[in-house]
Amino acid sequence: MANRTQNIIIVRNEDGARNLLDRIAGKSPAFVCVGGTTETAKIPGISMAGKEPELTSYTPAADLEILLHGKPKSMDGVPVTPQGIPTPALLTLSALQLGGMSPLAMNAGMKVRPRIPAIEVGGKPGGDIRGENAVLNPREAFHNARLVGEALGKAVEYLVIGETIPGGTTTALGVLRAMGVDAEGMISSSMPENPHDLKNEVVEEGLKASGLKPGSLEGHPMEAIRLMGDPMVPAVAGLAAGSAEHVPVILAGGTQMASILNILEARASGMLENVLLGTTSWIIQDRDSDLEGLVDQISDAPILAADLDFSEAKFDGLRAYQEGYVKEGVGAGGAAIAAMLRKDAVDAPTLLEKVEKNYEILVR
Amino acid sequence: MANRTQNIIIVRNEDGARNLLDRIAGKSPAFVCVGGTTETAKIPGISMAGKEPELTSYTPAADLEILLHGKPKSMDGVPVTPQGIPTPALLTLSALQLGGMSPLAMNAGMKVRPRIPAIEVGGKPGGDIRGENAVLNPREAFHNARLVGEALGKAVEYLVIGETIPGGTTTALGVLRAMGVDAEGMISSSMPENPHDLKNEVVEEGLKASGLKPGSLEGHPMEAIRLMGDPMVPAVAGLAAGSAEHVPVILAGGTQMASILNILEARASGMLENVLLGTTSWIIQDRDSDLEGLVDQISDAPILAADLDFSEAKFDGLRAYQEGYVKEGVGAGGAAIAAMLRKDAVDAPTLLEKVEKNYEILVR
Repeated sequence: MANRTQNIIIVRNEDGARNLLDRIAGKSPAFVCVGGTTETAKIPGISMAGKEPELTSYTPAADLEILLHGKPKSMDGVPVTPQGIPTPALLTLSALQLGGMSPLAMNAGMKVRPRIPAIEVGGKPGGDIRGENAVLNPREAFHNARLVGEALGKAVEYLVIGETIPGGTTTALGVLRAMGVDAEGMISSSMPENPHDLKNEVVEEGLKASGLKPGSLEGHPMEAIRLMGDPMVPAVAGLAAGSAEHVPVILAGGTQMASILNILEARASGMLENVLLGTTSWIIQDRDSDLEGLVDQISDAPILAADLDFSEAKFDGLRAYQEGYVKEGVGAGGAAIAAMLRKDAVDAPTLLEKVEKNYEILVR
Repeated sequence: MANRTQNIIIVRNEDGARNLLDRIAGKSPAFVCVGGTTETAKIPGISMAGKEPELTSYTPAADLEILLHGKPKSMDGVPVTPQGIPTPALLTLSALQLGGMSPLAMNAGMKVRPRIPAIEVGGKPGGDIRGENAVLNPREAFHNARLVGEALGKAVEYLVIGETIPGGTTTALGVLRAMGVDAEGMISSSMPENPHDLKNEVVEEGLKASGLKPGSLEGHPMEAIRLMGDPMVPAVAGLAAGSAEHVPVILAGGTQMASILNILEARASGMLENVLLGTTSWIIQDRDSDLEGLVDQISDAPILAADLDFSEAKFDGLRAYQEGYVKEGVGAGGAAIAAMLRKDAVDAPTLLEKVEKNYEILVR
């Protein structure tokens, strides 16, 4: 166990974390990555998950193609930030390869349909949270994803659930605020300088447009998603609710997964003891967001972080992660944790090596 | 083990069967049901999987809805034969419930889209095998399904793969004959009187329309599927090819699964040692078809059969199974075997009891 967890930090609820770690160490999980889009990502300055706002629609498709085919098919080159820093799908792909895992993809509603096999849950691409419907059919997507979660939960030893949706931290802020979580200034960003003011403004506008005040949808998760969320949220929440009834589930992501936890707390709290958050050390070290503070308001779910260090990486595009760019996404942290738990030989340095190799193949 | 297998018959390759049984006894599989449609089913007299030929398009959708929701949503009442005998989805549902399993659905190409979450592999509804393209894109569906199979195969202990596609025995005959298997008169039927002459005629016409002779596509499985098959075939074959690289796989079905075995033998023979056929005793007892004789021409894959007896069933519609109606479908035999292997308490009588209960809920 010592070896396996040498690069896994227990951030929160040590007892709960150790209990779950004991149950999943050495096991092979199903890794499901849920893709979606929201028009909220097109608001200038909101999302860096694409070279320019319009391109963010391609990012989830390309991310899932990278995971399933080893390379993007719907666009040339991998998704990058405006600064040219590549998608965390590179980390996820590398972790899955090292850990001997293969991903399943779920389409929660994507404007650009990836060229991959995907689990469809009836989700549609999401609208701008300042408009009428942020998510058209959250109940249907939640219910469908829950059925998938049940089937997987009865057949696998544990699940890791990642996400790829540009703009997702802003919609997470929307859902959290609508449901009464004090999340302002606590949501993370793919930039070293977190545009909190812009995100708060967009969410304020969204709340106003929907006739809401902070907290007015406490206890009404589906309505909060419909008005202020994105399509990834009900799909991930449903998948987790269905599977956590049977096996441990790692919600693989940063502060976006706090909004999922809040949905689960409202909708399926009985199974929360099987749920933990798995992320990267870059999220934990970030001074401009506060994942722990968010989760403190919601539940005692353990938080784990893969202790990654890219400061000695061969390529600028990877060293940028260490400087606070990107930080997390596409389930990178959770995939890294799962790979380390699965095979003793996988640790932070071997993962970086593999990421560098994939960088050479896919980016250079 | 004695208890567990008291209602499981080893039909073929006892050593291979016992070896695989030892590996899967007590384990919980992923059960995947693959749905598709083919216009071939609309030829009068070919398919009894619907009250009339036009209604066969609804059967796979309703079957999958029964498995996932416990009841059909796309039609009123459950699918029945022209005689009113209900779909074997009732047996599958009952077996999954008793065995503590939940199904995953794969859409291989269905004219009526079921209201369920489903894994999409890019398949399209199939055409009449007497026309130009029986299956539009078998390679894409095979490749996509294989990726799903790999992901599941790395995460679960074993897989059970069922199918629902009306007309599927005729297209199976088409694929087998095109690839050189002497299958005339050996394919089963959902009727006590098997319309072999009609099926042979349709397949002859199909071969002629595609400029083929029996055996001219030996070693060319994808071309055989494209011209003479149905959309279920590449999806099930891909799923099996991907997963059997890692874990045992039960192809759950009757003579249709022999065509899958033949595809695997041509395309992925290295993993055949992990593959077995699981069906019902009604298929094995049928004098009008010859599953064993078919498989003898292809590989030494073990065959198992759930030893079911509905002669004392409470309802006519179930006793009809004992008289040679329906016999198999929707993975009924494989699901029954998996449930018996999973829980000692499940045997043929408890399964019949559960089927009767579901019959009362869904049919009466």
